[in-house]
Amino acid sequence: MKDRPNVVLVFMDDMGYGDMGAMGGTVVKTPRMDSVAENGITFRHMYSAAPVCTPSRAALMTGRYAQRVGLPRVIFPHEGEGLSGYERTVPEVLKTRGYRTAGYGKWHLGCRPEHNPTRHGFDDFFGLLYSNDMDPVHLYDGEKPVQKEVEQAELTKQYTDRAIEFIERGGDDPFFVYLAHTMPHIPLHVEEGFRGTSRGGTYGDTIECIDFHLGRILDRLEELGLAEDTLVIVTSDNGPWFEGSTGGLRGRKIDTWEGGIRMPFVAQWPARIPAGSVCDEPACFIDLLPTLAGLTGAELPADRPIDGIDIGPALTGGPMPEREALYFFHHWTLNALRQGRWKLHVDRNPQPDRRELPQLFDLETDPGEAYNVANLEPEVMARLTELATSFATEITAQRVEAEGRAAGRCA
Amino acid sequence: MKDRPNVVLVFMDDMGYGDMGAMGGTVVKTPRMDSVAENGITFRHMYSAAPVCTPSRAALMTGRYAQRVGLPRVIFPHEGEGLSGYERTVPEVLKTRGYRTAGYGKWHLGCRPEHNPTRHGFDDFFGLLYSNDMDPVHLYDGEKPVQKEVEQAELTKQYTDRAIEFIERGGDDPFFVYLAHTMPHIPLHVEEGFRGTSRGGTYGDTIECIDFHLGRILDRLEELGLAEDTLVIVTSDNGPWFEGSTGGLRGRKIDTWEGGIRMPFVAQWPARIPAGSVCDEPACFIDLLPTLAGLTGAELPADRPIDGIDIGPALTGGPMPEREALYFFHHWTLNALRQGRWKLHVDRNPQPDRRELPQLFDLETDPGEAYNVANLEPEVMARLTELATSFATEITAQRVEAEGRAAGRCA
Repeated sequence: MKDRPNVVLVFMDDMGYGDMGAMGGTVVKTPRMDSVAENGITFRHMYSAAPVCTPSRAALMTGRYAQRVGLPRVIFPHEGEGLSGYERTVPEVLKTRGYRTAGYGKWHLGCRPEHNPTRHGFDDFFGLLYSNDMDPVHLYDGEKPVQKEVEQAELTKQYTDRAIEFIERGGDDPFFVYLAHTMPHIPLHVEEGFRGTSRGGTYGDTIECIDFHLGRILDRLEELGLAEDTLVIVTSDNGPWFEGSTGGLRGRKIDTWEGGIRMPFVAQWPARIPAGSVCDEPACFIDLLPTLAGLTGAELPADRPIDGIDIGPALTGGPMPEREALYFFHHWTLNALRQGRWKLHVDRNPQPDRRELPQLFDLETDPGEAYNVANLEPEVMARLTELATSFATEITAQRVEAEGRAAGRCA
Repeated sequence: MKDRPNVVLVFMDDMGYGDMGAMGGTVVKTPRMDSVAENGITFRHMYSAAPVCTPSRAALMTGRYAQRVGLPRVIFPHEGEGLSGYERTVPEVLKTRGYRTAGYGKWHLGCRPEHNPTRHGFDDFFGLLYSNDMDPVHLYDGEKPVQKEVEQAELTKQYTDRAIEFIERGGDDPFFVYLAHTMPHIPLHVEEGFRGTSRGGTYGDTIECIDFHLGRILDRLEELGLAEDTLVIVTSDNGPWFEGSTGGLRGRKIDTWEGGIRMPFVAQWPARIPAGSVCDEPACFIDLLPTLAGLTGAELPADRPIDGIDIGPALTGGPMPEREALYFFHHWTLNALRQGRWKLHVDRNPQPDRRELPQLFDLETDPGEAYNVANLEPEVMARLTELATSFATEITAQRVEAEGRAAGRCA
């Protein structure tokens, strides 16, 4: 067993909790994602740090809430904001331990040259800087736009080809591949051979296509003898949008209801993760950076708040380390927090109707967030309300500074 | 067995599909509603004709889509619109067969004297003319406001007391009781003794209170020897709003997704309904009037379109009669239709994002309306699109006339 695993993070765009067989889905067929669960672990309470693209990715990359990164909302091409050079990303942290790093697929953390993935720790990049419904949809190779008439139906295969090439490049150094697919975000485009083949319609076709190409990676890792020491994670950035299943959870993309933020999440790493494990403790994408740092012996940035915790113990089949709470925002507004079995909603966006707020839900008995039990749990209400107020205040206090960094006004 | 059953229709306000144990709910305890299912039939695909109060009730009362009644949206106190004297209601139809009729609870079909339930076939009325969040909340006895400072926590009991008194009045004539509870619509008010008792919080308390009082009616029917020949129906007017469970269905009140329109629905009638029956064929509140006419030998109005069909055969454990489709509107806009296993969405309200419309869902494999299968079913798409266009045209053609009747501009 190597001391530092290879890491392949397959990251879907707008795939829902219930779209993966391993999470209970029955319509879309995802045999290879399901095999990752069978060979590894399923997190049934894994959260995105945000219910939309940019802040979800900003938090995943930095281990910090997107508000700290100054990117709490979806950004559009040429707005100017992007990931600041101040931030320390997953690939940057892993590079301190000698990793080769590559990002393929959708970035959505800025379009100025200094925002390019190659300036943020990725040795190689190939993909789109934005969502596939935002003009212009240009394909970049490194920092160069190489294709202006992108054939979106080919992207899943193209990204995968590049990932496999990168893996095959070999050598003694471990690698980190961030494979952030463009699908199933709309507009849906399906590779020939997959069109009309899924019972989940065109949306299902795109996921079944991704599943097929995930299989190519898993097979190649096996063939190269790398599977045992490679941590493969498969997840999505936020809840489903127009189509896709939340698995019965309330709300969808954009919402801080569970359907907007609870993610399908499976991971295999034969050397360390017991096959068929399940974790029902809350965790979040902000935990990825500290966890990979922990697993690889890398140092975490010590000069700034890192919101995530090292969940390595839970990932490898042990107990979940204690944490205070997970917080969910809409832009700069704290909407909700989760602590243990409880979820407190203090605000709601967009177009809030606040008549029934605050609401306290017991996710253990009521996963659908249907029944406000604030009247039954005054002590929980008091404790969580205090946490919410305190964290909202902390985040607000650093807003000007964080926005300044994202806008390039300070380093 | 009597040739004409007594009928007790218990109608909740904003109770969700998943709030009833018989429909799969686990948090709120509804043992008496569940007993109705055990002793009778559960419809798992029963639809309200609309996802909000007024049109749902207008359709239920008349057997016609609310657009034909001129009441396709929620009305507010003193707006002037209401149920026209032109319409023929369930109690009016039953009165032609000698029924005693009573309405207790929320009306929401107009507040001018000519809109009062007593002018529309009810021998007795006691309740609110509007929702409990609309000023003024005045309690009416017949056509007279009798209480201006309504203690809402007492309403469930008060309505039930009146219903039991009415049932006890006896005589040879069969009776029809429409018991339209004010709860669990917000603001939630809970009878003393039920406060803080449900694991579903205050919302659950209100439903468990209704369930208890339903039990009083069921018990009294037994004691009076009337249970065998009484059809007891328990359902709700539309999907849940701020709280309440859709049972995992998509959308909520106001939406034409299943969560807004699919209703909990159980019915017992020991003389005719086999215990423990289940019906999974689509049916709708518009079917109530033709069905009760069919069961009692009453004539249907022949001079106007009646949209519902007589589902008596399915109610009593047999097959569902054929129907063309069920149509779901937002105000005057056709949103969706259901035919067999298929549901077609052609528009969406309010604040529609039409990028992904039209959508076709297969409710048999995909009850969560997650996967648009339009690409897989071109023939179904063509057939349902034709039906949608044709029905939308028919409804639009009679709009001016229908609005005129509801506004009192014509008889």
